[in-house]
Amino acid sequence: MSKVAIIMGSTSDLPVMQDAIDVLKEFTIDVEVDIVSAHRTPEKLFDFGKNAHKRGISVIIAGAGGAAHLPGMVASLSPLPVIGVPVKSSNSIDGWDSVLSILQMPGGVPVATVALNGAKNAGILAAQIIGASDKEVLNKIIAYKESLKKTVEEGAEKVRSKQ
Amino acid sequence: MSKVAIIMGSTSDLPVMQDAIDVLKEFTIDVEVDIVSAHRTPEKLFDFGKNAHKRGISVIIAGAGGAAHLPGMVASLSPLPVIGVPVKSSNSIDGWDSVLSILQMPGGVPVATVALNGAKNAGILAAQIIGASDKEVLNKIIAYKESLKKTVEEGAEKVRSKQ
Amino acid sequence: MSKVAIIMGSTSDLPVMQDAIDVLKEFTIDVEVDIVSAHRTPEKLFDFGKNAHKRGISVIIAGAGGAAHLPGMVASLSPLPVIGVPVKSSNSIDGWDSVLSILQMPGGVPVATVALNGAKNAGILAAQIIGASDKEVLNKIIAYKESLKKTVEEGAEKVRSKQ
Amino acid sequence: MSKVAIIMGSTSDLPVMQDAIDVLKEFTIDVEVDIVSAHRTPEKLFDFGKNAHKRGISVIIAGAGGAAHLPGMVASLSPLPVIGVPVKSSNSIDGWDSVLSILQMPGGVPVATVALNGAKNAGILAAQIIGASDKEVLNKIIAYKESLKKTVEEGAEKVRSKQ
Amino acid sequence: MSKVAIIMGSTSDLPVMQDAIDVLKEFTIDVEVDIVSAHRTPEKLFDFGKNAHKRGISVIIAGAGGAAHLPGMVASLSPLPVIGVPVKSSNSIDGWDSVLSILQMPGGVPVATVALNGAKNAGILAAQIIGASDKEVLNKIIAYKESLKKTVEEGAEKVRSKQ
Amino acid sequence: MSKVAIIMGSTSDLPVMQDAIDVLKEFTIDVEVDIVSAHRTPEKLFDFGKNAHKRGISVIIAGAGGAAHLPGMVASLSPLPVIGVPVKSSNSIDGWDSVLSILQMPGGVPVATVALNGAKNAGILAAQIIGASDKEVLNKIIAYKESLKKTVEEGAEKVRSKQ
Amino acid sequence: MSKVAIIMGSTSDLPVMQDAIDVLKEFTIDVEVDIVSAHRTPEKLFDFGKNAHKRGISVIIAGAGGAAHLPGMVASLSPLPVIGVPVKSSNSIDGWDSVLSILQMPGGVPVATVALNGAKNAGILAAQIIGASDKEVLNKIIAYKESLKKTVEEGAEKVRSKQ
Amino acid sequence: MSKVAIIMGSTSDLPVMQDAIDVLKEFTIDVEVDIVSAHRTPEKLFDFGKNAHKRGISVIIAGAGGAAHLPGMVASLSPLPVIGVPVKSSNSIDGWDSVLSILQMPGGVPVATVALNGAKNAGILAAQIIGASDKEVLNKIIAYKESLKKTVEEGAEKVRSKQ
Repeated sequence: MSKVAIIMGSTSDLPVMQDAIDVLKEFTIDVEVDIVSAHRTPEKLFDFGKNAHKRGISVIIAGAGGAAHLPGMVASLSPLPVIGVPVKSSNSIDGWDSVLSILQMPGGVPVATVALNGAKNAGILAAQIIGASDKEVLNKIIAYKESLKKTVEEGAEKVRSKQ
Repeated sequence: MSKVAIIMGSTSDLPVMQDAIDVLKEFTIDVEVDIVSAHRTPEKLFDFGKNAHKRGISVIIAGAGGAAHLPGMVASLSPLPVIGVPVKSSNSIDGWDSVLSILQMPGGVPVATVALNGAKNAGILAAQIIGASDKEVLNKIIAYKESLKKTVEEGAEKVRSKQ
Repeated sequence: MSKVAIIMGSTSDLPVMQDAIDVLKEFTIDVEVDIVSAHRTPEKLFDFGKNAHKRGISVIIAGAGGAAHLPGMVASLSPLPVIGVPVKSSNSIDGWDSVLSILQMPGGVPVATVALNGAKNAGILAAQIIGASDKEVLNKIIAYKESLKKTVEEGAEKVRSKQ
Repeated sequence: MSKVAIIMGSTSDLPVMQDAIDVLKEFTIDVEVDIVSAHRTPEKLFDFGKNAHKRGISVIIAGAGGAAHLPGMVASLSPLPVIGVPVKSSNSIDGWDSVLSILQMPGGVPVATVALNGAKNAGILAAQIIGASDKEVLNKIIAYKESLKKTVEEGAEKVRSKQ
Repeated sequence: MSKVAIIMGSTSDLPVMQDAIDVLKEFTIDVEVDIVSAHRTPEKLFDFGKNAHKRGISVIIAGAGGAAHLPGMVASLSPLPVIGVPVKSSNSIDGWDSVLSILQMPGGVPVATVALNGAKNAGILAAQIIGASDKEVLNKIIAYKESLKKTVEEGAEKVRSKQ
Repeated sequence: MSKVAIIMGSTSDLPVMQDAIDVLKEFTIDVEVDIVSAHRTPEKLFDFGKNAHKRGISVIIAGAGGAAHLPGMVASLSPLPVIGVPVKSSNSIDGWDSVLSILQMPGGVPVATVALNGAKNAGILAAQIIGASDKEVLNKIIAYKESLKKTVEEGAEKVRSKQ
Repeated sequence: MSKVAIIMGSTSDLPVMQDAIDVLKEFTIDVEVDIVSAHRTPEKLFDFGKNAHKRGISVIIAGAGGAAHLPGMVASLSPLPVIGVPVKSSNSIDGWDSVLSILQMPGGVPVATVALNGAKNAGILAAQIIGASDKEVLNKIIAYKESLKKTVEEGAEKVRSKQ
Repeated sequence: MSKVAIIMGSTSDLPVMQDAIDVLKEFTIDVEVDIVSAHRTPEKLFDFGKNAHKRGISVIIAGAGGAAHLPGMVASLSPLPVIGVPVKSSNSIDGWDSVLSILQMPGGVPVATVALNGAKNAGILAAQIIGASDKEVLNKIIAYKESLKKTVEEGAEKVRSKQ
């Protein structure tokens, strides 16, 4: 069965990254979670990146803030698709630093970047990647998209009735 | 067999998007290419988005410039993973407009965004997504990554010998 | 009689968009309000955009945040003038994302963009558009502009008297 | 019959603003063109702004670069809808100055802002504003939108046939 | 005797602009204060700009936020030196809008721009402008600069003694 | 008689700064020109800043690019009004570096900042500062402003006649 | 023995700069701390910059906000390595002003810039500079880096056990 | 004897990085040059970072563009001072990506960042770091600073004589 690894640079990223964990559990997709710091635990980063695809991981989600090198370095080391979540950390320059240092990867080494603090979308994207070859998961995505419509329509009804 | 659809908002995006076509051909992955404009051909967009997953497409790559709505709108319509390529078009404000209007998708509807004009990486990412469940493609990715090292090392040798 | 449709991407945009509703009511211009999400209810968006001009709507105001595709997509579907309100949503990068993804529309499909969170001005602009062919509304605009002067002059008096 | 006034801050803005003139002529809408500088001819600005609506003008298009005050000042003086075109002038800071000084108008005085150098869209928007109360012009807009589709589809065919 | 006029676009700018009033009173330079809105009271703006130099004003300080046209429009109308204070207003895009719409004036019509919310410096600059031809005021500036040193040195002593 | 000192950080700034020299000569105001580098000739900077007001200088214009410290450091050393010209140098980040490092001076030490590469306006502002106490120069400013109108109106005539 | 001088433009920078003091004390490296304002105490700046290397200082850390000229001016005056800390001060434009006015030094006069509010890293960098020629300090750096790993691994354990 | 290692992410960075090589040769400081790509040769990066301090390197200069992870990753692996040079690469977003992904390092792992394309200053800074403990090199720095003054003064003379 497919499994998603969710890593982040620091425990302070967990409140943002929890959304990815939660949405993948909703899709009943297996996740493993760890802290891997590109700058403080480079050996662990290497070990993780080199071996993830050998132990059943299909997709990697990596979140980091500031000069966020974790997603790009994992993408350098692993042949798996890597989803990067720019986290708006405390001394960030409005999030621009994490967005640009995750997004602007050089030719050859892509990171699938989602919105600032967009961990929920990282989880959904991981599910979509698995769904690209797994009918059951694809159907869950289709159902999920239907549920989004319902939520909007419920809000819409309230707004219309207030006028 | 897996197939990647590559769409773009205008023929003027083709010189940038060609890199995605080329790299996928290198990986011998099947591609289809079309122009779909979110703003000028909305019905075609709807048709494309609603049906891509029904006719054997596994991954969609969408490139657009300026207020680039194509990737996000396809992601709205399709359950497949959508890779967005921000194209730096002629009247773009330094590319910020295409980057932000592709990247900053709301919760529920992700777009896997790559670097400005990063169509080559969009192609590689599509291959990695297919490789997440296809051993053969995964091995091609691993081989590709090895080839990157060689190219660097050849350049390095020249630089070192010049000192 | 002319009527203005005010739509927004999410109920969370309502506190900002209420200003447009209020100012149009001040001008006794008929409004209808609805939630239409480009990314979560694309069919509703299509239906709305294709038909608004057929059921007595003269002007459309569309507000959205982040990668804000609603105004541009409605402009793609409708021949009516579309006013876009960039909303500064919670995970926005300082509002730049909504501003640029509404403003930077490609040639052929304009969106009349107002300031960040400028829903009040969207309402006034809708009234001005109606006033362009409706003498009565034009006179209300002229009266409104006079009232702005009075408010300023009252504040000015207080400031001068304090010196 | 409705008439659109197109003004700009300097003759150097004409190459950009010509697109607005051309597209309105395509729609056979009457235009008048003039140079009005907010900073160098303030009396002319006042005269123009105060009187435009008295002499048959329905919509004003104003283009300017740098600290672009012309659109906002005309909007201050006239009850008509004012469309602002941010022009990327030679010493502009990448166009940000003209975009922000046109877009970010205070509550009470809207400017309908289009994309950087987006004079063509300003012309189309003016036509749409007239079309909001003029069936014939509305039908021209609908036809124009159809023609956009054709152009895209012709390009699409070429791209597809090349693969 | 020289006199400085301090105007601002809205009473909401007063808390920022008060610093200019206060520092000029410290220098015992005569000030007059008024609210003049470029967008809501254009006639007052014209009247003010055209006549300030005729009634004993030597320097004008103008503060405004958002699309801040007041300083530039006064500079357009008056031959006097105009100091512009970009005010960070509530819906400002981080202050960039007011900074750029005051600073980036076209050739021929300068505005002496100070820092965001830098009203105190606007007051000092006005005093320096008067001091350029008034020995007594120049000496006050020199004394003021000496006082700055003392304040710093007192803080420095505390910091050093704490180590 | 009043005299303006024009200094710049490098000979490479001269093509931009020449505009200030030229416009002041038009106003027949005396200028002295020198290269003073804050970073490479700090002693000369000190000497210049400390003594300018003692040898008949009334206004200082300082132009610099990149991390542009010259205007602020001269303002630190001299009691005279200092006009700063942000120069867009070759490795500048689009001019933002020179703009912000000249504009954002701390409370107590103002620099009268003009537009990016706005040396012409620096010259006019210097003339206006002198004109604040010198009737003859003031009248030249008034005449100059009249001449601006004429130039605009000549261009306007050509544009109108072409329609 | 090596000694690091830590200076800052204002006592209000101390809460940020304290991190540099603390981390150097952890490394038992001698520090001296002072307030030196480029704009308010230019003579002290000169004196400090000219003499630091003559009285046993090996590295200078300089922190400042806004138009932050202190690091660059000290680098202009001293032959020692100067580390600049951009401080996000109260009226800063999101920190961009201090970052750019410290980072973008012209060729010939480098400042070793660290992250916004990154005083801790300034302290570590100073230690690394000393460690470049001092085996004992180098070993402390190596030990410090090991301690970072432990802290990360402790957090990682907690995160993993919570899943 | 001290030695500086200069590494860069790609041979395309060499034209920029050559300035660092040249200036260090001027100071007769030993350099070694290599291409090390964080994203394409991660094993070489690890090897380089882990061992540089063991084979006589005192300072590392690392240049890279786009999402520039090389300087930060080397800083993660090596206890030596690392100087980062943001290179403005071809698809860079105006250099912001390389600047922010080098500068905004998290607490614990500093990179001494210099200006965009500022390789010359990286070389001088490396010399200053060596000079912090090496009298001879310090004296060369002092002499170099004197030479800067002469160059400025020669340019100044020409500028003055032209007036």
